[in-house]
Amino acid sequence: MKAILLLSGGLDSFTTGGIAREQGFELYGLTVRYGQRHHVELEAARKVGLTLGVVRHLEVAVDLAALGGSVLTGEGRITTGWRVGDATIPETYVPARNTVFLSLALGWAEVVGATDLFIGANAVDYSGYPDCRPAYLEAFERLAKLATRAGVEGASYLVHAPLLHVSKADIIRRGLALKLDYGLTWSCYDPGPDRVPCGRCDSCRIRAGGFREVGVGDPLLAAPDPTRP
Amino acid sequence: MKAILLLSGGLDSFTTGGIAREQGFELYGLTVRYGQRHHVELEAARKVGLTLGVVRHLEVAVDLAALGGSVLTGEGRITTGWRVGDATIPETYVPARNTVFLSLALGWAEVVGATDLFIGANAVDYSGYPDCRPAYLEAFERLAKLATRAGVEGASYLVHAPLLHVSKADIIRRGLALKLDYGLTWSCYDPGPDRVPCGRCDSCRIRAGGFREVGVGDPLLAAPDPTRP
Repeated sequence: MKAILLLSGGLDSFTTGGIAREQGFELYGLTVRYGQRHHVELEAARKVGLTLGVVRHLEVAVDLAALGGSVLTGEGRITTGWRVGDATIPETYVPARNTVFLSLALGWAEVVGATDLFIGANAVDYSGYPDCRPAYLEAFERLAKLATRAGVEGASYLVHAPLLHVSKADIIRRGLALKLDYGLTWSCYDPGPDRVPCGRCDSCRIRAGGFREVGVGDPLLAAPDPTRP
Repeated sequence: MKAILLLSGGLDSFTTGGIAREQGFELYGLTVRYGQRHHVELEAARKVGLTLGVVRHLEVAVDLAALGGSVLTGEGRITTGWRVGDATIPETYVPARNTVFLSLALGWAEVVGATDLFIGANAVDYSGYPDCRPAYLEAFERLAKLATRAGVEGASYLVHAPLLHVSKADIIRRGLALKLDYGLTWSCYDPGPDRVPCGRCDSCRIRAGGFREVGVGDPLLAAPDPTRP
């Protein structure tokens, strides 16, 4: 069975891929380049895809930054994400990001003949993101069935988000049990010029908290990638 | 009231914009550059946006061609669209295209504070496209409400497709009544190096049939744009 795996290079999508692989899916890795993330994250996605044994790995560029230009103007730090004037939305929220990502995954699924989409969405650490909720993912499944020829012909699409209700610590425990090498991943939103995680952004802090709770060291910090300049 | 208008530069999106303007919406024009269309179409979208008086006009690049690379390999003519091995899908069908387009429109809607999206989808001439059906558009509205902060807070999104069940001739009649200058638009999938409509592709034939049925000349053919080289 083929499945599309949205692969960011972070802990969650890597672990999601490990779970999908364990379930016997042939993985088609899809990494969306949407402008605001650091190149090191794309490299992590490539390494993670290789170690998961993806059949193919596609990178698709989408210029999401264009949509928010007016909002971000004058704010300078694009790496920390979007500010849409609503304090209840995390600053890293990108409008309609998961919808765009899942749409691209759906397009590729239609081309390769897959009806399973895996996404590392998580509703624990990112509870402020509307598009990380189960009802949202179910609405996307309904849309996918209506949007596609396969759906019209009777197929049903499944959006698998196996980590939706799993804490970061339990995600790490799950991945360690699957023997995933988290030293390949990348989480930091705001790496410095030396390509070392900043340790201060939300993503770094949530990651560090997860490893602390599990009681193991983060291999990314313990053994820096020797290929880094 | 602000509205996002998906603007391709063709007859349908121009007419849709004319209808939206007549209804009093402030238009935010969104043109998606997805790789397989001719540059002349983007120029048409810009002209059409100007004449509609859009508040802003964004072009967002999405590399949809990457998704279909394996399918198109060796087939040469990318301008005639996608072949996914199913004869019942028109060859110009792009997997998940409307879903990707509407997702981008939704992202921009969230940024500018709009909940109305206008799309020139048409279920008459493109009956083979699953993502041009009313049920599909309604499913997207449900998804949009779940995907966004505004939706969570009670707002409802409307996907307006005022031409969904309108024939090409009636679209043209509607636009002529709105005094739209169809000489600004572009429909051909496969223009030659002289940037003249091919007259043979589906899109040219449907357009010509519409003008013939209305009994007026196509201004694009009658008065070629003097700015063309």
